[in-house]
Amino acid sequence: MTRQPPGRRDDYRRFFAVTPRWNDNDVFGHVNNAEYYGFFDTAVVRFLIEGGVLAADGSGQAVVVAESGCRFHREVVFTDRVEIGVRLETIGTSSVRYGLGVFTNDDVGAAAEGFFVHVFVDRDSKRPTPIPERFRGHFEHLS
Amino acid sequence: MTRQPPGRRDDYRRFFAVTPRWNDNDVFGHVNNAEYYGFFDTAVVRFLIEGGVLAADGSGQAVVVAESGCRFHREVVFTDRVEIGVRLETIGTSSVRYGLGVFTNDDVGAAAEGFFVHVFVDRDSKRPTPIPERFRGHFEHLS
Amino acid sequence: MTRQPPGRRDDYRRFFAVTPRWNDNDVFGHVNNAEYYGFFDTAVVRFLIEGGVLAADGSGQAVVVAESGCRFHREVVFTDRVEIGVRLETIGTSSVRYGLGVFTNDDVGAAAEGFFVHVFVDRDSKRPTPIPERFRGHFEHLS
Amino acid sequence: MTRQPPGRRDDYRRFFAVTPRWNDNDVFGHVNNAEYYGFFDTAVVRFLIEGGVLAADGSGQAVVVAESGCRFHREVVFTDRVEIGVRLETIGTSSVRYGLGVFTNDDVGAAAEGFFVHVFVDRDSKRPTPIPERFRGHFEHLS
Repeated sequence: MTRQPPGRRDDYRRFFAVTPRWNDNDVFGHVNNAEYYGFFDTAVVRFLIEGGVLAADGSGQAVVVAESGCRFHREVVFTDRVEIGVRLETIGTSSVRYGLGVFTNDDVGAAAEGFFVHVFVDRDSKRPTPIPERFRGHFEHLS
Repeated sequence: MTRQPPGRRDDYRRFFAVTPRWNDNDVFGHVNNAEYYGFFDTAVVRFLIEGGVLAADGSGQAVVVAESGCRFHREVVFTDRVEIGVRLETIGTSSVRYGLGVFTNDDVGAAAEGFFVHVFVDRDSKRPTPIPERFRGHFEHLS
Repeated sequence: MTRQPPGRRDDYRRFFAVTPRWNDNDVFGHVNNAEYYGFFDTAVVRFLIEGGVLAADGSGQAVVVAESGCRFHREVVFTDRVEIGVRLETIGTSSVRYGLGVFTNDDVGAAAEGFFVHVFVDRDSKRPTPIPERFRGHFEHLS
Repeated sequence: MTRQPPGRRDDYRRFFAVTPRWNDNDVFGHVNNAEYYGFFDTAVVRFLIEGGVLAADGSGQAVVVAESGCRFHREVVFTDRVEIGVRLETIGTSSVRYGLGVFTNDDVGAAAEGFFVHVFVDRDSKRPTPIPERFRGHFEHLS
């Protein structure tokens, strides 16, 4: 398994703060791996809400996660200040792939890095639908 | 069921920010009730860590929750700024009861109010143990 | 604080199995207190779905939790088999109060006991609405 | 993005049941993507506990997740019976890569498929340590 060096803050375009919770901890005294995906979802949805793609109550454009992944470089602990960096990796007809980084405190290197693929879907059929033209500009803030 | 009016910010002594997460939502488009208890635990443990009672990795004094409860006045949504207010309700030989309020945005009245009873326990026997004298002063910050 | 003795399985009418998850653990090596409320919500909603009150996707009758609470008698660990006992405490015009018990393995006494108050609400106005007559019979399974 | 067809039950060796929880739902009325990683962690750790690698309270061999990922084929809903299939993908000096599948009800094809890489670490230094010889046989149950 070759490991790339961790990415850095300047590899990302937008940052969203999330606060670790005491119940994020597992028995090993650090944030459990599954919680990172909740951090990623939170950061990406905040970005979508800013652009009017989605509303806080879930109304607006429906999106589903088609694929996600994460490499964990260093642990995150309860008292860390945590920010999630977001960048655009690719955008297609109906899907967007975001690159995501977990940054702690004033550290420049990522504690973890992952990705999310969102597919825009029709709310009723749940089938992929093209990304509406009016939303495409918003994704430029990530590239 | 008689309902007291919601408490206000000036009923609480310390405030700890928590960020709602996208996966806190349930199908009704608001933060699920169970998550409030994670907010409470987070606020109380941050306070304990400040006072050196507990460390971020769980070392230090062991505490267990003996009882908790919450009344939900208004919903909390993903885009709300959330702060948890903490106050001391009672302190006994080996237990502390905290009053807790969930405050959103610039609202003065609580969206929800609850309580937590922490029992100080011996890490090995898990039986109640007196609150060490050196920690008692820290709880005055809550009263 | 006077503590009643823990309730027993025969104090409850229906039981719903839930599986502990590794990330339910906190640093103390047991299921974190906040997770119990997720267990309670799960048991109660399964009961409501059985009676056709609510559907799995959240359509049907909207309900909100107005109040909840729990007393924790013994810890629950990852490898425990867990069942949530449910009973009816009171039913009013638009609200239902459930008694809830956490039972582990073959133990007769509850590891924790709590309650939940559900208010039936209008989906749009989110204001209380009378419990429809056709659902009242279903709650008799809990008494 | 080429998508492989979903894997099938007979691609996996061991199955562990997990129960969806009401608060796993997000606003779209299905289990949120982050929860799948909690399912994966649960299945893998149950397997490790069976083999005496790890204990329910986290004592025993320390392991950390170095990498994880998931492709989501179909949604999972609250009322689904869910089993997590586990298989061994690779085993090295100090790391194990598991293949994981999410199976619902009596469906043969996976609703989602992912992987987890566990690194065996020294509890104090948190640095990789060789998988003890006495545990290697246990992993053969997954291949």
